[in-house]
Amino acid sequence: MSLYSQLFYSNEVQELFTDSQSIRQMLRVELALTQAQANNNLFAKSIADAISAVCFNAEIDIDQLKNDIPLGGNAAIPLVKQLTRKVAIVNEEAAKYVHFGATSQDIVDTALVLQTQEFLTWINAKTIVLEKQLVELTREHQQTIMIGRTLLQHAKPTTFGYKTAGWLTAISRSKERILEVQKRVEVVQLSGAVGNGNQAISTQIQDEFAQILNLKTGFSWHSNRDNFAELGSVLSILGGSLGKIAKDVSLLMQTEVAEVFEGAAEGKGGSSTMPHKRNPVACAAILANTNRLPHLAATLLSALPQEHERSVGLWHSEWEVLVEIMQLTAGSVEKSIALLAGLEVDKDRMLANLELTYGLIYAENVSLALTKKIGKAVSHELIEKACKKAISENRHLKSIILELNKDLSDIDDLFNPKNSIGLSLELINKLLEKY
Amino acid sequence: MSLYSQLFYSNEVQELFTDSQSIRQMLRVELALTQAQANNNLFAKSIADAISAVCFNAEIDIDQLKNDIPLGGNAAIPLVKQLTRKVAIVNEEAAKYVHFGATSQDIVDTALVLQTQEFLTWINAKTIVLEKQLVELTREHQQTIMIGRTLLQHAKPTTFGYKTAGWLTAISRSKERILEVQKRVEVVQLSGAVGNGNQAISTQIQDEFAQILNLKTGFSWHSNRDNFAELGSVLSILGGSLGKIAKDVSLLMQTEVAEVFEGAAEGKGGSSTMPHKRNPVACAAILANTNRLPHLAATLLSALPQEHERSVGLWHSEWEVLVEIMQLTAGSVEKSIALLAGLEVDKDRMLANLELTYGLIYAENVSLALTKKIGKAVSHELIEKACKKAISENRHLKSIILELNKDLSDIDDLFNPKNSIGLSLELINKLLEKY
Amino acid sequence: MSLYSQLFYSNEVQELFTDSQSIRQMLRVELALTQAQANNNLFAKSIADAISAVCFNAEIDIDQLKNDIPLGGNAAIPLVKQLTRKVAIVNEEAAKYVHFGATSQDIVDTALVLQTQEFLTWINAKTIVLEKQLVELTREHQQTIMIGRTLLQHAKPTTFGYKTAGWLTAISRSKERILEVQKRVEVVQLSGAVGNGNQAISTQIQDEFAQILNLKTGFSWHSNRDNFAELGSVLSILGGSLGKIAKDVSLLMQTEVAEVFEGAAEGKGGSSTMPHKRNPVACAAILANTNRLPHLAATLLSALPQEHERSVGLWHSEWEVLVEIMQLTAGSVEKSIALLAGLEVDKDRMLANLELTYGLIYAENVSLALTKKIGKAVSHELIEKACKKAISENRHLKSIILELNKDLSDIDDLFNPKNSIGLSLELINKLLEKY
Amino acid sequence: MSLYSQLFYSNEVQELFTDSQSIRQMLRVELALTQAQANNNLFAKSIADAISAVCFNAEIDIDQLKNDIPLGGNAAIPLVKQLTRKVAIVNEEAAKYVHFGATSQDIVDTALVLQTQEFLTWINAKTIVLEKQLVELTREHQQTIMIGRTLLQHAKPTTFGYKTAGWLTAISRSKERILEVQKRVEVVQLSGAVGNGNQAISTQIQDEFAQILNLKTGFSWHSNRDNFAELGSVLSILGGSLGKIAKDVSLLMQTEVAEVFEGAAEGKGGSSTMPHKRNPVACAAILANTNRLPHLAATLLSALPQEHERSVGLWHSEWEVLVEIMQLTAGSVEKSIALLAGLEVDKDRMLANLELTYGLIYAENVSLALTKKIGKAVSHELIEKACKKAISENRHLKSIILELNKDLSDIDDLFNPKNSIGLSLELINKLLEKY
Repeated sequence: MSLYSQLFYSNEVQELFTDSQSIRQMLRVELALTQAQANNNLFAKSIADAISAVCFNAEIDIDQLKNDIPLGGNAAIPLVKQLTRKVAIVNEEAAKYVHFGATSQDIVDTALVLQTQEFLTWINAKTIVLEKQLVELTREHQQTIMIGRTLLQHAKPTTFGYKTAGWLTAISRSKERILEVQKRVEVVQLSGAVGNGNQAISTQIQDEFAQILNLKTGFSWHSNRDNFAELGSVLSILGGSLGKIAKDVSLLMQTEVAEVFEGAAEGKGGSSTMPHKRNPVACAAILANTNRLPHLAATLLSALPQEHERSVGLWHSEWEVLVEIMQLTAGSVEKSIALLAGLEVDKDRMLANLELTYGLIYAENVSLALTKKIGKAVSHELIEKACKKAISENRHLKSIILELNKDLSDIDDLFNPKNSIGLSLELINKLLEKY
Repeated sequence: MSLYSQLFYSNEVQELFTDSQSIRQMLRVELALTQAQANNNLFAKSIADAISAVCFNAEIDIDQLKNDIPLGGNAAIPLVKQLTRKVAIVNEEAAKYVHFGATSQDIVDTALVLQTQEFLTWINAKTIVLEKQLVELTREHQQTIMIGRTLLQHAKPTTFGYKTAGWLTAISRSKERILEVQKRVEVVQLSGAVGNGNQAISTQIQDEFAQILNLKTGFSWHSNRDNFAELGSVLSILGGSLGKIAKDVSLLMQTEVAEVFEGAAEGKGGSSTMPHKRNPVACAAILANTNRLPHLAATLLSALPQEHERSVGLWHSEWEVLVEIMQLTAGSVEKSIALLAGLEVDKDRMLANLELTYGLIYAENVSLALTKKIGKAVSHELIEKACKKAISENRHLKSIILELNKDLSDIDDLFNPKNSIGLSLELINKLLEKY
Repeated sequence: MSLYSQLFYSNEVQELFTDSQSIRQMLRVELALTQAQANNNLFAKSIADAISAVCFNAEIDIDQLKNDIPLGGNAAIPLVKQLTRKVAIVNEEAAKYVHFGATSQDIVDTALVLQTQEFLTWINAKTIVLEKQLVELTREHQQTIMIGRTLLQHAKPTTFGYKTAGWLTAISRSKERILEVQKRVEVVQLSGAVGNGNQAISTQIQDEFAQILNLKTGFSWHSNRDNFAELGSVLSILGGSLGKIAKDVSLLMQTEVAEVFEGAAEGKGGSSTMPHKRNPVACAAILANTNRLPHLAATLLSALPQEHERSVGLWHSEWEVLVEIMQLTAGSVEKSIALLAGLEVDKDRMLANLELTYGLIYAENVSLALTKKIGKAVSHELIEKACKKAISENRHLKSIILELNKDLSDIDDLFNPKNSIGLSLELINKLLEKY
Repeated sequence: MSLYSQLFYSNEVQELFTDSQSIRQMLRVELALTQAQANNNLFAKSIADAISAVCFNAEIDIDQLKNDIPLGGNAAIPLVKQLTRKVAIVNEEAAKYVHFGATSQDIVDTALVLQTQEFLTWINAKTIVLEKQLVELTREHQQTIMIGRTLLQHAKPTTFGYKTAGWLTAISRSKERILEVQKRVEVVQLSGAVGNGNQAISTQIQDEFAQILNLKTGFSWHSNRDNFAELGSVLSILGGSLGKIAKDVSLLMQTEVAEVFEGAAEGKGGSSTMPHKRNPVACAAILANTNRLPHLAATLLSALPQEHERSVGLWHSEWEVLVEIMQLTAGSVEKSIALLAGLEVDKDRMLANLELTYGLIYAENVSLALTKKIGKAVSHELIEKACKKAISENRHLKSIILELNKDLSDIDDLFNPKNSIGLSLELINKLLEKY
C-alpha cells in the first residue's frame, strides 16, 4: 500500500489483507485440513492436534517466506515448509501429515476465499448502509425541485430525490449481485495435485473441511476461475455506480452550479490562497477508483483461459488483482458513505438555477396548454416565435407569452416548477415501497 | 462486419443486429408506445392504429437516417422524423402523437433491450446444448485416463472426463449467471426527457407498454447503466470459459501431445505443403474472441459514471460495444458447439503419453506403499535415489525399484494408471447427478 | 459498420477498410511478390505478368471468400485459392507460381501494413490541420480571459488561449509519436512458413518486394507484434487528447457556464420541446470513442505473448481490433476538426463568470499587496476575515476590503483580471515560436 | 506490496518507490524550487538555505502525512504543511517562502518524474543487458536446428537462434521506444494554481528549477497527460515482448517437448511428490505480469480526458497505477534476465522432435525435387499418396519415397534438416551486424 492508503482505501478492509492475515488464513486452512483428516481417521487425533497447535501459534518468518516464494511460485510452498519444520520440533510423526494430500493451490485458493468471505461480510453490511442513506435522502428530497440535465444541458425539472432514487436502484442491484456471486464463490478448494482428489482427500474429508471453514464444497476449480472473474466484475460495477454518484456530486459542486456539496471539515478541500474553493476531494478519490476498477476487473476476465489443470501465470496474475479490486471497492464504499452522510443540499440555489434559461424549460407546458385553446399549428408557431424572442432578448418567456396572449389565465401554473416534475413523486413512492 | 464475419461470429446472431433489425425494433417500440397510450385513452384508438400501421410497414431510408444521426447524436431522432413524416401523409392528426411524451433514449434503450432479449433466448438455448455436450463427453470419457498437467508439466493422472467435467461446471455457472442478469436486464426504458415520466407516460402506460413488449417495468435507468455492464461481464466470462476449453484443446492438439483434435473437415486446418499439420482453426477463432471480450466488457464498466440524467458520450459508447460483445460471444458459443461435437480423442496416445516420464508420476504411490513396509525415512531416501537414477539413466522407475526392492509384490498395481486417478470417477458421478 | 457509421467514424477512412479494399491490398501484395520473384529470375517474366494481370482485374467472390475463411482461419488462404484458379484459366503454368514460397500470414500482415500506411498518410495530414487550428485559436484567444478551474472549481484566471495552447501541446506530441511509430510499422512481412525465408524468398526478393510496395524490409515479425501494439496505443493517446478537448468543451457548454459552444447547424443538437438546449453532440461522439479506444489498445497489448512462430488466436484477435482503432481515431479526428472549426467563444460570459465568486479569486493578490504595507501576519488575518465576510454576506470582496482598508490605492488593479493571468501571454508566445 | 514482492517485482526498483523515497523526491522538488527562486532574487539566499536544510534533513511523520492526505486529496498538501512547520521553528521568515507560488500538483508531478527518471536509468541499463544476452543466445544457437511451430503445430525447421533473434528484435524496438518516451517525459511541472505561472514562477525560475533537477522545462501539462499514458503503454509493450519469451520457454519446457528449460536451482520449480516436474516458475511470474500490464496501461489511457486545469479523479488515478506499471515491468525485466542467463537448451531433443512427424515436414522438399524430374502433376500426386501412407501406417516418409521412387539420389539431403532451415543463417547474420 502506498502513501495513499488513507485516500483510496478502507482501513478496515486493509486489515483483512495484510501479510500476516494472509498467512493466518493459510494456516487456518492447513488446520482445517488436518482436523478433517483426523476426524475421518486418516491419522490419530493427536497428530492433528499437534499440527493445529502449531498452526495457531506459528510465528512465520515473513521475510524468509517472501524470499522463498520465487522458488516454488506461490506462498503455500514455503509456508508449508516452515510449518512442517515447526511441527517436527514438537512432534516428528505429525510433521509427516502436514498439508497431507493437498496441493499448494488448495491452500492459496481456499485462504483467498476465506479473506473474500470476510470482505463480503463487510461489504454486505455496507451496501445496506448505503441503501438506507439513499432511501433517506430520497425521502427527504422527494420534492426538492431541481433541473434535470441531459448531455450536461438543462432539460426539464426533476427532484433531487428522484436523482438519488436512481442512485438507489443501482446500489440495490449491486447488493443483489454481490449476494448472487457470494453463493458461487464461497466454495473451498481441496482436491490435490491435479484436482481429482486422492486417498487423503476423500469427499467426506472435503465436506468436513468445508464445514469447519464455514464454506461449501464443490467441484475442483483449479483452472476454471469464472467465480473470481465474476466477483471482480460485480465489484467493479458497484464501484462504477458509486462513481456515478461522485460524478454527479462533483458536477453539482461546480462553482457555477453550487447545488450540492460534500460535507465540510476543518482543512478539507479548501485552499488558503483560494478561499472560494471547495474541492470535491472525496469525489476525486472515488472517481479515481472508478477509473481503475474496470481495468482490474478485465484483468481477471483475461485470466480465464487457464491451461490444463493449473496455469502458468494466469492463476498467478489473479492474486494481487483480486485483492486490489476488493480494496478499491471498499475504499469507494467507505468514502461514499461519508460523502452521503455529509451531503449538503442547497434547495434555494436549485430553484434559482431553474430560472437560468428564462423560463424556456416550461416552453412545452405552455405549448400544450395553448394547443387546447388555439390549436396545435397556431400554438406551435407562437411558442417558437416567443422562445426565439426570449433567447435573443434575454427576457423571460413568461413575460413574452403574456405580451402575446393575455388570456392564458393559468400562466403562473404553467411556469411553476412543481407542475413540471412529471411523475417524480409517484414513481419515488412506488420505488420506496420496496424498502 | 468485416471479411471475418464467418470466422468470429454467428450468422444467426448477426441477423438480430443488422441495420434493418435495429430499425425494426425501434419501430416496434414506437408502436407499443402508441398502442399503450391509446389503450389508456390518451388519444383515439384510430390514431394509434394509423401510427402502428406505418410502424409495421415503414420503409425507412437507412442512408438518410445514418446521415442524420450526427445532428442529434442517436438513431431515434431521425427515425422519429422519418416516421412522423410518413404518418402525416396518411393521417395528419396522428402525426402529432408519434413518439408522444417519449425521449429518444427511451426508444434506443428499449429497442436494444428487445434485441438483447432475442439474443438471450438464443444463448440460453445454446448453453443448454453446451451442457448436454459436456455431460455426454464427461460420461463417455469418465474413465479415459490421461495425464493431468500443471504449469504445462506432467503432474499426475486424471481422466479426460474429469477435465471435461471441469469445463462443464464453468459453463453451468455461466448459464446460471445469464439467467440472473436476464431478470434484471429485460426492463423497458420509458420515462421521458429527464426520466421522471410525464402526462403522456403514466405508470399505467409504462406497464401496458412493457406488457406489449413482453418486458418488465422498472425505475428509469437512463444514466444508471449497471445492467448492461453486468451483461457484458457475464458474457465475457462465458467467452473466457469457452476460451479455456479452446486453450486446452489447442494444447492437446500439439504435434508432441496429439491426444485430442478438432474434427477434421475437407480443407479445414490443413496445409498442402505441410501435410502433417492439423491446425486448431476453430480454437484460434474462439481464442481470438477470448482475447477481445474482456476489454469490451471493461468498456461498459468504464461507461458507468454517466453524468446526471443523460451522459455526454458514455451512453453513446455502449451501443456498438454491447452488440459486439453479444456477437463475439455468440461466435464463440457456436464455434465451441461445433468443436465439441467433432472432438476426436485418442485414448491410446493418452496412455502412451502417461509413460513419457518413465514411471516417475507413480513415485508417490511407491513411496506410500514402501513407507508401510520399511518406514518413512528409509522409504523416502530409497525413492529419491531411484528417481534420480531413473532420470539420469532414462530408465523406467519400475525396473529400478524392482532392482532395489524385489519384495514389493503389488508393484504392477502401483504403476497402474487406473489406480492413480484419485477420486475422478466418484467425483464425476457426484457431479453428474445434477444433470 | 453499424447504423452509427456517420456518428463515430470518418467516411474517408472507412473507405480504406472496406472488404473490397482489404482484398485489393492482399492482391497488391501477391502482385508485388510475383514481380519481385520474376525480377530475380525465379521464373519467367511472362509468368509474373500473367499473375499480375489477374491480381489487377480479379473479381473475387467475396461471399465465397468469407465462407471459406473458417476452414483455414485467415483471408489469404481462400483468396489464394480463388486467385490460383483464375490464373490457371489463363496460364496453367503460372498458376503454380501464385503465392510462391509465401505463407498466408505474409499476405495478411503486409496488406494490413499497406492499409495502415494509407491511414497514416491520412492522419498525418489531419494532425497538421489540428495543429494549425489550435495555433490559430491560441493566437486569437491569447488574451481572452476566463477562469481557470481545478477539480471543477473556480481557481484563478487564465486565458482561453492558454487552455487551447495546452491542447495544442498534446496534439503535437501525438503527431510526433505517430511519426515515430510509422517508421517502425511500415515494414513488409515476407518470410514464409516459419518466418525464416526459403528459396523463393531470398533477401533480394524481400528487398525488391518491399521497394515495389514502398515499404521497408525487416526481420520477420510473425509473432513479435509490438509495432501494431504501439500503433494502437499511440492512436488511443491521440483519441484521449481529443477527448480532453471534447470534455472541456462539453463542460464549458453547460447551461450554467455557457462560455464556449459547438458550432450551430440547422437541426444540430437542438430539441423542439426544449428550445434552450444546445447539446454537445460532436463532443458526445468524440467522448464515446475516447471511452472505447483505451480498451481496444489494451486488446493489442494483451495479444503480445504470441506462441512460437504463429499464434493460435492472439494474431487473429488483432485484425478487426487494429482496424477499429484506426477507424475510431479517424472519427475522433474528423469530428474534432469540425468542432474546432465551428467553436464559438463567448468572451463576455467568460468575464461575467469570473465575478461569480465575488472577487474571492483575487484574495491572494490583495494579500500580497497588503503584506508589503502592513506585514504578513496582520495582512493574512485581515484577508481571512474579509473573505469569510464576503462569503457569508454574499458581498464582493473589493467592497469589504475598501471598508477595512481605505488606503489601498491600487485596489482596482488588484481586482483586474488582466493582472491575474500569470505568465499566460509570455508562455503562449514562447510556445508559439515553435509553430 | 504484498507477500509476492519477491515473485513479481524487482527489489532494486521497489527501493525507488518506497514511501520515504516518494517523500524524499517531493522534498527535493521543494528544495530545487526555493534555490531557483533565491537565485533569481525572489528572496534572500539565506531563506532558501534555511528551507533547503530542512528539506535535506526533515523527518516527516509519515503516518500523520497519510492521515492528512484525504483532506486535500494529494500528498504535497500535508507535506508542505509539515515542512512549513519545521522551517518555521528554525526561521520564521523562511517559512513564508516554502512552496512559494507553486501548486501541489507541481510537486507531486515533478517528484513522480524524478522517480520515473531513476527508473528509466535503471531500465535502460537492463534493456542493454537483455539485448546482449539475446545477441549471445542468437550467436550460440544460430545453427541449433529445431522445429518451427505455427498454431502450436510442427511446421518446418528453423533454428533456436532464429527464434531468439525474433525476441531480440522486439526487445530492441522496446529499448528504442523507451528512449523516445524518455525525451518527452523528463519534463518538470512548475506552473502554479492553474498552470500559467505567476510572479514567483517566472520562466527563468522554471528553467533554473529544471536545471537543478536535471530535467527539461516545457509547457504546463497539469491536465494534458499523454506522456505518462505513453510511458505506460511503452512499458506494457516491453512486458508483452518479455511475456512472449516466457510463453515460448514455458511451451518448450512442456514434458512432451522438453527442448528448453529454465535454469535449475536448489528447490526451484520442483516437487517432492512429483520428481519429474520442472515447473517454469520464472515464466509463470513473467506471464502473470504480462496479463496485468495491458490493463494497467489502459487505465492511464482512460485517464486522458482530464477536466479543465486539473481533474477530479483522473489525475489521482494515475499515481499508483503508473508506479505499479514500472514495478511490474521491472519485475519482468529482472526475471527475464535471470531466465535467459540460466536457459538450458537440449539440442539433441530438438533434433529428435524434428522426427516426430515421420519426415512429413520434408514433404515439400521432396515435392520440389521430384517436380524437376517427373513434372509437377505426377510429383504432386505421388507425394500426396506417400504422405497419406506415412500417416496411416506410421512409417517414415523417406522409406516410402524410396519404395516408390528409387532413383532419387539426393534423398538424404532432402531429409536433412540442415537443408531445411531456409535463410536462417543469412538472416541472422544480417541482423547481428547491427549489434
